[in-house]
Amino acid sequence: MKLATYKDGSRDGQLVVVSRDLETAHYATGIASKLQQVLDDWSFISPQLQDLYQSLNQGKARHAFTFDPAMCMAPLPRAYQWADGSAYINHVELVRLARHSEMPANYYTEPLMYQGGSDDFLGPLQDAPFPDAAFGIDFEAELAVVTGDVPMRSSPEQALDGIRLVMLANDWSLRNLISDELAKSFGFFQSKPATAFSPVAITLDELGEAWDKGRASITVQSTWNGRKVGMCDAGKEMTFHFGQLIAHICKTRNVRAGSIVGSGTISNRAIEKDGKKEWVNGYSCIAEKRAIETILDGKPATAYMQFGDSIRIEAKGKDGHSLFGAIEQKVMAQA
Amino acid sequence: MKLATYKDGSRDGQLVVVSRDLETAHYATGIASKLQQVLDDWSFISPQLQDLYQSLNQGKARHAFTFDPAMCMAPLPRAYQWADGSAYINHVELVRLARHSEMPANYYTEPLMYQGGSDDFLGPLQDAPFPDAAFGIDFEAELAVVTGDVPMRSSPEQALDGIRLVMLANDWSLRNLISDELAKSFGFFQSKPATAFSPVAITLDELGEAWDKGRASITVQSTWNGRKVGMCDAGKEMTFHFGQLIAHICKTRNVRAGSIVGSGTISNRAIEKDGKKEWVNGYSCIAEKRAIETILDGKPATAYMQFGDSIRIEAKGKDGHSLFGAIEQKVMAQA
Repeated sequence: MKLATYKDGSRDGQLVVVSRDLETAHYATGIASKLQQVLDDWSFISPQLQDLYQSLNQGKARHAFTFDPAMCMAPLPRAYQWADGSAYINHVELVRLARHSEMPANYYTEPLMYQGGSDDFLGPLQDAPFPDAAFGIDFEAELAVVTGDVPMRSSPEQALDGIRLVMLANDWSLRNLISDELAKSFGFFQSKPATAFSPVAITLDELGEAWDKGRASITVQSTWNGRKVGMCDAGKEMTFHFGQLIAHICKTRNVRAGSIVGSGTISNRAIEKDGKKEWVNGYSCIAEKRAIETILDGKPATAYMQFGDSIRIEAKGKDGHSLFGAIEQKVMAQA
Repeated sequence: MKLATYKDGSRDGQLVVVSRDLETAHYATGIASKLQQVLDDWSFISPQLQDLYQSLNQGKARHAFTFDPAMCMAPLPRAYQWADGSAYINHVELVRLARHSEMPANYYTEPLMYQGGSDDFLGPLQDAPFPDAAFGIDFEAELAVVTGDVPMRSSPEQALDGIRLVMLANDWSLRNLISDELAKSFGFFQSKPATAFSPVAITLDELGEAWDKGRASITVQSTWNGRKVGMCDAGKEMTFHFGQLIAHICKTRNVRAGSIVGSGTISNRAIEKDGKKEWVNGYSCIAEKRAIETILDGKPATAYMQFGDSIRIEAKGKDGHSLFGAIEQKVMAQA
């Protein structure tokens, strides 16, 4: 099923069930008012939502209305956890190669992950406000899952059972703040402002065969100022699958219902063509494009985003329908 | 006023108002059921709680009962943000001196801060479970504040107005996981398991003159296995006050109601006595004790905590009464 959160003036919005084709929606009133409630009590509440979803898809839901992504907050407008991995090792390799820094051996055996702020997410069509374009504004197209309860010491396989929903994320990053911040050794902080999520979060069955043991073989499109710059396959080159990412958190603590876990920038390897490398699938963040330029030409040519720039992130199923709806944001100056 | 969250089998517990002397309590039923609700709508709800608090202190509340810290969850059993600073630069200096690493200049001008997990806090009297004592189990006695909404780009002075409550924190740390983790450059993650908080969170007026522009001049006692090891003054040596810590987060994002911001390990400088340094106030985490031992004797002598060890953290007001109640936890093995 597909779930979204409609604006209603409150901090957590109002839960709606959305039809498979994203054409119609229905308030989940009488079942649950907020998505977090559903995650807190999944086995009891989700079957009731599933029934409503079925009626909606069959055109039989009584108070259905036209679904409007502009009414959407993030599916979880705020969450108790946002932990973001860097699961596509190709991205990390490119960035490191560009700055001539070796890959630490453990990068191949355990995932990189940072704890993100989760008190103030951006809606899918909400402008992204930043104090200064000189901070190096960059989008990052990612997949993210929402979990149920996953106990401490769960294995990656056990953790897979804890996945409830999948959505798209735009993990906004301020590149020019990162190096100073990482030099302080405490990790990302100011360099990771509020993250945005897709209009709709979906259950795993909606992905059909594209979902395979923690990886989703779907193409995530990134369109920057109207130009399609990324068409990256999220599946086969995901070095650490979502079960591994969740289990990484579980090593020393419980993961509780409503935790959001991100894949990191989706990234695909180059193909060899006439002895040359070609990144035919493009990129899911500007930092990767700049790394490639640096590797090829000694310096980056593509600038980061400016105020007024737009980014659209979307994934389509095999039938050509949008799976999660699109994230579509403009970069703006924060007064 | 003083607020706590009683266990009721739910994830967020039940809000209670606690008397100033921590002797009696009263359910906030009819006003608010959860602390997060109060923080979401502080100016409307908090005066009602304040009225109840006054009746309770005067012995006039009808359904008052004996307050039992064993019934307490963390005041916020889960939160939308837990951002922990390292505001006592003396602690950072000692740790760096022990490993002969220089203090970066910006450590004196902007706070160190990491984003912590906030989906699964420990109650004040809850055992702290860890998979392995070899991880280097350590307590950290800290102060923490809970905020209202503080907009992006707020100044430290503006941020001070956003502080709603103060409490104690035990920021459990797994020291032997830290160096590998920081070497990966993404910051703390597995080395920071679930944090515990004091039974009671209090408003700033409860601190009286001890609260001065973002610093609380109170003594925080740490008692390890029945031995008092720390009697640290939380006030005057706090290099960055809470307004500065909150403003650090606000540089690139909004801070939303219910965010918890920690001070980092409370730490006091040595005094000079007969040409020798003496750390008369003791320590608020074992890592600092080991750093001092290393500076004096070339190597640490005090081991980290073992399964079965206990830690008690408490702060008393000038009248000798406990301000927040005590955190009192046992270290246990997680199966």
